Amino acid sequence: MKKALFLILEEYADWEGAYLSSTLNQREDWSVDTISLDGIVSSIGGFQTSVDYIIGSEPEDFNLLVMVGGNSWSDDNKELLRLIRTTFQNNIPIGAICGAVDFLAKNGFLNDHNHTGNSVYVWNDYKNYNPEGNFLEKQAVKDKNLVTANGTAPIEFTKEVLELIEFDTPENIGKMMYMNKYGFYNYCEKYGNPYLD
Amino acid sequence: MKKALFLILEEYADWEGAYLSSTLNQREDWSVDTISLDGIVSSIGGFQTSVDYIIGSEPEDFNLLVMVGGNSWSDDNKELLRLIRTTFQNNIPIGAICGAVDFLAKNGFLNDHNHTGNSVYVWNDYKNYNPEGNFLEKQAVKDKNLVTANGTAPIEFTKEVLELIEFDTPENIGKMMYMNKYGFYNYCEKYGNPYLD
Repeated sequence: MKKALFLILEEYADWEGAYLSSTLNQREDWSVDTISLDGIVSSIGGFQTSVDYIIGSEPEDFNLLVMVGGNSWSDDNKELLRLIRTTFQNNIPIGAICGAVDFLAKNGFLNDHNHTGNSVYVWNDYKNYNPEGNFLEKQAVKDKNLVTANGTAPIEFTKEVLELIEFDTPENIGKMMYMNKYGFYNYCEKYGNPYLD
Repeated sequence: MKKALFLILEEYADWEGAYLSSTLNQREDWSVDTISLDGIVSSIGGFQTSVDYIIGSEPEDFNLLVMVGGNSWSDDNKELLRLIRTTFQNNIPIGAICGAVDFLAKNGFLNDHNHTGNSVYVWNDYKNYNPEGNFLEKQAVKDKNLVTANGTAPIEFTKEVLELIEFDTPENIGKMMYMNKYGFYNYCEKYGNPYLD
């Protein structure tokens, strides 16, 4: 069983991890757990999530860290930084979206990866942001073990992370994401009705 | 302050209510609360939601009921049925998506509304589904005080519900939903960069 940890902070963005968590957790060989600084975390949308792990008590072995965006990524918590640093050092795949990418930029984690994010302009004041790689004006970018995305790209983010972890063939991942992006009727027009096969 | 209740059952679909809850809850004049049959409800994606109200203890006054889809809508719980019947009787706006629409079909609530849903074929066995209105092959349908949608239509669902409750002008709602559907770069191409105004 492979394990994905979804790292959420207070006022996390409901929509940003929703497609990825549900896709992973529906498969028998993957499970999703949540992790945060506190036991109960509120989403931007007002949902109270009771998390599975407090940072520091997480399992040693996990296969993916998903850093969900939101309004609390300016937190300079040491345990948070330690978890992320260790995950990079262990070459565990990481997906970061929206505010979580700002945190990576601020703490120097983006310098050796091509990447994207909400906006490079807000990072100009970060003294640890000295990228050798490029900021790409794309919805989501995959480079080595890192996927980054802006906050309007939950589906593109999901697609890149699923490809990174080799969740399925690129063709099957593409079809799943087409359904999510363009909806049932457009999917049927392009690929046929999946319930009438 | 207007109140939206998000009705979620075990294995609710993370992505279906995410855009709507976050849009509503970010506005000062709306708040979002969750309601269910149990105190802790798991999403399909493995998030544990600690709900605000158990059905039966909900406030008398609320302004919108959002029935989020998922895998437990075959439950014939009497309190669940009572909440939904009362909400229809009181002419409170209702949004229902995916599995939640199946529940409405099964219990005769769709008969006097134009509507959509995941698939009309699965409703043929429901003796209380005798529609005077039409099943429309669209992502989301608004008729009177009811919005229905299929499970691949969280954004179209959000748009129709926001129009139903007159959350903003149709033009502004359309722009917000364009950003969500097509992403930041397509939005900038069509409407200009909102951060450079």
